[in-house]
Amino acid sequence: MFKPARHGEVGGVSLQRSQQQKPLRSHDRFNLCAEMSHKIVNLRVRDVRFPTSLEQHGSDAMHTDPDYSAAYVVLDTDSGLKGFGLTFTLGKGTEIVLCAVKALAGLVIGKSLQEIVSNFRGFYRLLTSDGQMRWLGPEKGVIHLATAAVLNAVWDLWARAEGKYHAMYLSIQDPKQIVSCIDFRYITDVLTEEEALDILVKAQEGKKQREDQMLKEGYPAYTTSCAWLGYSDQQLKQLCSDALKSGWTRFKVKVGADLEDDIRRCRLIRKMIGPSSTLMIDANQRWDVAEAISWVSRLAEVKPLWIEEPTSPDDILGHAAISKALAPLGIGVATGEQCHNRVMFKQFLQASALQFVQIDSCRLGSVNENLAVLLMAYKFQVPVCPHAGGVGLCELVQHLILFDYICVSADLRNRMCEYVDHLHEHFTSPVVIQDAHYMPPKDPGYSCEMLEESGLYFKHFTFVQYKHWRGKNILKLSHKRTGLKMSKEKVFQKAWGTEINFLQSSFSVTVNRIFFFLLIKVPSFSESFDFFLILFGLSFIM
Amino acid sequence: MFKPARHGEVGGVSLQRSQQQKPLRSHDRFNLCAEMSHKIVNLRVRDVRFPTSLEQHGSDAMHTDPDYSAAYVVLDTDSGLKGFGLTFTLGKGTEIVLCAVKALAGLVIGKSLQEIVSNFRGFYRLLTSDGQMRWLGPEKGVIHLATAAVLNAVWDLWARAEGKYHAMYLSIQDPKQIVSCIDFRYITDVLTEEEALDILVKAQEGKKQREDQMLKEGYPAYTTSCAWLGYSDQQLKQLCSDALKSGWTRFKVKVGADLEDDIRRCRLIRKMIGPSSTLMIDANQRWDVAEAISWVSRLAEVKPLWIEEPTSPDDILGHAAISKALAPLGIGVATGEQCHNRVMFKQFLQASALQFVQIDSCRLGSVNENLAVLLMAYKFQVPVCPHAGGVGLCELVQHLILFDYICVSADLRNRMCEYVDHLHEHFTSPVVIQDAHYMPPKDPGYSCEMLEESGLYFKHFTFVQYKHWRGKNILKLSHKRTGLKMSKEKVFQKAWGTEINFLQSSFSVTVNRIFFFLLIKVPSFSESFDFFLILFGLSFIM
Repeated sequence: MFKPARHGEVGGVSLQRSQQQKPLRSHDRFNLCAEMSHKIVNLRVRDVRFPTSLEQHGSDAMHTDPDYSAAYVVLDTDSGLKGFGLTFTLGKGTEIVLCAVKALAGLVIGKSLQEIVSNFRGFYRLLTSDGQMRWLGPEKGVIHLATAAVLNAVWDLWARAEGKYHAMYLSIQDPKQIVSCIDFRYITDVLTEEEALDILVKAQEGKKQREDQMLKEGYPAYTTSCAWLGYSDQQLKQLCSDALKSGWTRFKVKVGADLEDDIRRCRLIRKMIGPSSTLMIDANQRWDVAEAISWVSRLAEVKPLWIEEPTSPDDILGHAAISKALAPLGIGVATGEQCHNRVMFKQFLQASALQFVQIDSCRLGSVNENLAVLLMAYKFQVPVCPHAGGVGLCELVQHLILFDYICVSADLRNRMCEYVDHLHEHFTSPVVIQDAHYMPPKDPGYSCEMLEESGLYFKHFTFVQYKHWRGKNILKLSHKRTGLKMSKEKVFQKAWGTEINFLQSSFSVTVNRIFFFLLIKVPSFSESFDFFLILFGLSFIM
Repeated sequence: MFKPARHGEVGGVSLQRSQQQKPLRSHDRFNLCAEMSHKIVNLRVRDVRFPTSLEQHGSDAMHTDPDYSAAYVVLDTDSGLKGFGLTFTLGKGTEIVLCAVKALAGLVIGKSLQEIVSNFRGFYRLLTSDGQMRWLGPEKGVIHLATAAVLNAVWDLWARAEGKYHAMYLSIQDPKQIVSCIDFRYITDVLTEEEALDILVKAQEGKKQREDQMLKEGYPAYTTSCAWLGYSDQQLKQLCSDALKSGWTRFKVKVGADLEDDIRRCRLIRKMIGPSSTLMIDANQRWDVAEAISWVSRLAEVKPLWIEEPTSPDDILGHAAISKALAPLGIGVATGEQCHNRVMFKQFLQASALQFVQIDSCRLGSVNENLAVLLMAYKFQVPVCPHAGGVGLCELVQHLILFDYICVSADLRNRMCEYVDHLHEHFTSPVVIQDAHYMPPKDPGYSCEMLEESGLYFKHFTFVQYKHWRGKNILKLSHKRTGLKMSKEKVFQKAWGTEINFLQSSFSVTVNRIFFFLLIKVPSFSESFDFFLILFGLSFIM
């Protein structure tokens, strides 16, 4: 399980495209790209779901059966260059995020990349502060997840274009350009534009050495793959043993469902990894404040570095109380994967409510908002240890943490990036882990382009479902693609449960498109339009 | 403009239904209702939008052109009884909330009302803590707005059923039943179930007198209708003068776009209403912390009671800093209309970050979560002054504030409920304002049932659009219904801009339904199914 992700294993259509694009790295093409405006002519979004709950991957105290999923965005430009972005979800409700992405599309299509990045702060605010849509947030929940998906695609496009054509983390190197991407609204009481610029300019010293160091050694990682809550003790031991062999020294264990069970599991892991390895525990928001303090105190014997998400992600003062109570035990508080924007992070830092900042590449408003949080964390001298895992989170966040080390913090003490070994095989440029370190991505962009066939994963299930319903169980295809050992019944159950909505909407949209196409393009169809008015009428009655 | 909302003006289908239902109030029917389980057999949701931006109603410093809208939910039961609920939005993006309501529908359909209310806390948590969907919040943004719409409909249904068949605020009178509706998760460090029960039991004293007092005098209100940011000085003067004649003594002014303009407008209003009337100002999140303090200090001369939403709704510590700075000037801080859940309100109270709690009937998770906030506010002895206006917010929140006075606070000092005189004519039981007081609603339910034709308002626009496109301008109907003086071009522009999505989806869903109906019901259609497989194929390609 702990093999490094495979760089060579890209396949199908995307591999071909990837190969075609590589010559663009040559110097001649740089100028060609720079001259193009890359006008965004289309935005496509797909509902991609993986049945991870079938084997309890990702299970924790609050999310007992996640199906790792994504709202996957592709930006098409008039130059032919594409931008790929996504936001991570847990299955049900991904269609809501898609709906939100579509609502934002009108603000993106028609703009050129040049236009966007020359006033990136303005563009960020355009998406997050629309006079009507901001009511749905503002800057939180579904609409902010959708903003992240769109902006992640813009950052990917930017890294591939403008003569840079390199890994995204290298796009954010010029201090002035960096601050021009950040919306400082609501955080100036803690960080002004001038302070941010000052931090970045000072960090220019030694930048080259740190970049070289990263290319050679990589960025330290920890693993969460060993101890999901739904795993048996045997599974846990096996995974832990494999991980140790692969060089892992930092381990996270899910806790919070049952105290005695937690004690047993944590002791088991601590015994296996020994006293010198690092152990973290994660409750995924299971407790109230007092309960968190007493529960974690009982687990102090296994010497965890931090307790992650002990209570509601919104409870800044609660986290502050827990931090204060656990400090004498040497246990820090970590949170952030559901911290919904920079205003919340600002307060967590102001209130000394966390000792580890866990940024998320999809929960916050993409790179723009993460830059603000990285700079605030630096100001408060709190280490950043990003949240990753899910679908594509490792691929995305590695760029942010590399940027943090090279251009902001210049510090590796108490810093590491989460790693989970699932679903990387669906990306054209999967993360590369060597000796428990993230190796800097070398392919152009923000590393979240999916294989063409993986983007269709969800639809494939629909096909399985249809065939099953017709009484012909041809589920072999399913087994082959998922690589999971699941029974036919389970596949069908999953397929039926989550994908019927998509089946409906996909079909509807098509019929609709045909209808509108005919209406606009074919004169005779337009003449006989009154017939279709009846259909309209029917649609309002039903 | 300041006429009291008209009770008699209910029309069309709903009036008939309303009249039919009234006999159910008789004692005999009480038992009949109680015996029924009222199983929810269907959930319908509609996108209802009003073009309020055409005349700048509702305009403020951050929301310059709101089109007051709602995601409107109807629950059908097997007994024939219906429940009506909604959540308020500002136009664009309402379709996202609809999508979220549909995602929640599966958790509601099939449950009986008895089943729900006998474990209402459990049902609340079922909706807010679904293992997969909670990732989209949790308890914030689109998914929480959708939860509010669904739960508002459940509360409406409950008030109409179970032998109560009375106004919603009368449903929440038994202390034990009240606490059983509240999810205390994440707030027990401030309010436990036992404390809540204790508060409610103590407030039983004098309850009858307060109820009688309310029936006689009503609950004090303030008006926001006079001074939206987009109004001209002349319009402002006229509306203010009319309001004074109608007995209003409490006025709120929108500020935050331009300081000099604010000073002029506030002076003008203060001069008109005199020194004894109450003036509040509302910045709708326009400022950063330092800016808020300096700007409001400049406006101190007009002696505002409070500054509302001075900065980000998420910034608890920012509000605390502003509160501290403005206290010497005698200006309080009010916030809450975008405070997304009880955990945030808990902290606002803990940090002394507000002096007026502005609950919202649709932002929080319906009555259940608002009960928690009312009780916490009582514990901290901070007055509750609800947010209202929009579509249906006045109709809904009047129940909550009546409950607060009768069953919790027993106090009217510094307490008043917002009132805006827009769109009440679209409800079957609109609010009744007498002498600037909310008169307790007498009709059964939660007062947010819309007229049948108002529920179709949105679709009506589509019709206008279609006819316009066909070159036949029959916009009279539109004028008649909206009561707004708008040009044909404006109507068309609005219609085209916001409603095309709905037009599409509505049509698609219908075609889809026909298809599935035929597939399941008509054997011959099923036989020729392979033909339709081509259509499926097409839908995946497009």
